[in-house]
Amino acid sequence: MNNAMLEIEKFKAAWVAQALEQAKSPPSLDDQRRSFDALMGAVPIADNCEVSSITSGGVRGEIIVPRDADLSKALVYHHGGGFTFGSVLSHRHLVSRLAKAAGVVAYNMEYRLAPETPYPGAIEDALQTYHFMKTEGFAPCRMVFAGESAGGNLTASLLLKIRELGLEQPAGAYLLSPWLDLTQSGDTYQERAAYDPMLTRPALDFCSQAYRAGKDATDPMISPLNAQLSGLPSMFIQVGTDEVLLSDSLEFARRAALAGLDVRLHVWQDMVHAWPLFHTSLPSAGLAAIDEAGAWIAERLRER
Amino acid sequence: MNNAMLEIEKFKAAWVAQALEQAKSPPSLDDQRRSFDALMGAVPIADNCEVSSITSGGVRGEIIVPRDADLSKALVYHHGGGFTFGSVLSHRHLVSRLAKAAGVVAYNMEYRLAPETPYPGAIEDALQTYHFMKTEGFAPCRMVFAGESAGGNLTASLLLKIRELGLEQPAGAYLLSPWLDLTQSGDTYQERAAYDPMLTRPALDFCSQAYRAGKDATDPMISPLNAQLSGLPSMFIQVGTDEVLLSDSLEFARRAALAGLDVRLHVWQDMVHAWPLFHTSLPSAGLAAIDEAGAWIAERLRER
Repeated sequence: MNNAMLEIEKFKAAWVAQALEQAKSPPSLDDQRRSFDALMGAVPIADNCEVSSITSGGVRGEIIVPRDADLSKALVYHHGGGFTFGSVLSHRHLVSRLAKAAGVVAYNMEYRLAPETPYPGAIEDALQTYHFMKTEGFAPCRMVFAGESAGGNLTASLLLKIRELGLEQPAGAYLLSPWLDLTQSGDTYQERAAYDPMLTRPALDFCSQAYRAGKDATDPMISPLNAQLSGLPSMFIQVGTDEVLLSDSLEFARRAALAGLDVRLHVWQDMVHAWPLFHTSLPSAGLAAIDEAGAWIAERLRER
Repeated sequence: MNNAMLEIEKFKAAWVAQALEQAKSPPSLDDQRRSFDALMGAVPIADNCEVSSITSGGVRGEIIVPRDADLSKALVYHHGGGFTFGSVLSHRHLVSRLAKAAGVVAYNMEYRLAPETPYPGAIEDALQTYHFMKTEGFAPCRMVFAGESAGGNLTASLLLKIRELGLEQPAGAYLLSPWLDLTQSGDTYQERAAYDPMLTRPALDFCSQAYRAGKDATDPMISPLNAQLSGLPSMFIQVGTDEVLLSDSLEFARRAALAGLDVRLHVWQDMVHAWPLFHTSLPSAGLAAIDEAGAWIAERLRER
């Protein structure tokens, strides 16, 4: 067994133990939000990064500037958390590492969460951030969008919204373990359930219902897996073999290819949902995946 | 339009013109073999490579050693040509460039062609080369297998054969525009036909029939797309959006992922079948794809 395998075995076991513990007294959504932010927010950010808050016309978030970053190029990151939790705080460490690996500025975006604000609130916030970044001097061709899990969904819907409005697309989109099918009908939702200690059907159902608030899960703006993808920018998708969302990535890559897009997919053996977010427990595969994504982002922004 | 797009437009137009010309008086298979070898064999190999022929116990081919290569690691390359044409001569330039990009020794393998030698002759030859390389001191974990088009099929069937025999797998397999489905039933065989000036249905039918010689096209050793892929090594697949074989790669990547393998897929926008082979006409995307493949091969062989 190599280090990555040892780390993931231990990580999975800890997650199963925690799930069993939580099953005894399920936390409230507020508790879940607070504990996720506390736990993930405590992870140190990458060295030599400056973080400053932005609140501008409804846009909330923070700019992360790694030392020596190219100040004319930006990663715009949409955090995950099933549309119902997660924040700039929980994802600051990941976004800072991605920015550093890519050598660019990052915008770590806040958006309104469900169930308080259902679809399309998050997309409206993401679109507002896109406009904000343009007024800050970042041409779309000098931006890469990114997000993991529900944030990958938000990233994809934002691209669709930008196409719908006839606006300029960014240079690319990096999707980590994206949740693109809120109907949850891909084959791995069942086939991988035994390997995936993180995403349970009841939890996914809760998030899907909270975000949709009665709207149709097959709507391509809610499940971008159902969208026609022509005109979208280059994409890079990372996903683990051991997550129920695997089929979302496989099918999205297929549809992107059939739409004639440049698309790269890397399926990481043994990895679970959004594993780079847990790089403190999974340093081998987590940091390698961050480096890989950073290199792709840098490549997309080269000569722009 | 960027350079890659200008180059591919011109390349496609030239190919269409040539196909129209050939339709007037179709060349014999012997003519086709000779002209392909002459044309492709005239492309200079990478700088600073030494080439030496090998004929050993039925194994025929050549060793290509780039200056400064790691002599303990090898790329074993299986050329394409629909199982019916192509040779070490036609592919020497590509294999030398891949070896140089990866920084390893390459074995450019010859195998018996159909219809003179149908299935499973090519696989027998490939297996013999695998054994030969081991006796030459290359442990399987220090080899990467590769091939394009029918050579990608041969590479995949060789992995299946190695698994069947309980032998040790190589460190990885690089497949360029692989032809993995000799039933030709993927959706892009029709959907991409209008974009693909290179692979026609009659030509594919001829090659499939010549190789199978009456055997069932659905046999997983003939169409590895139908194989269960567990236990196979890491894979890297490159394919173009504008080739009828696109669906072979998409479906194979999907099946590799579902089998729990580490798999990377890069779908190259606007590119045609096996475009790195034509890097003299397509320097932008052709050489970039060779560099990308070389980097992947080097990564697979790092710390081995």
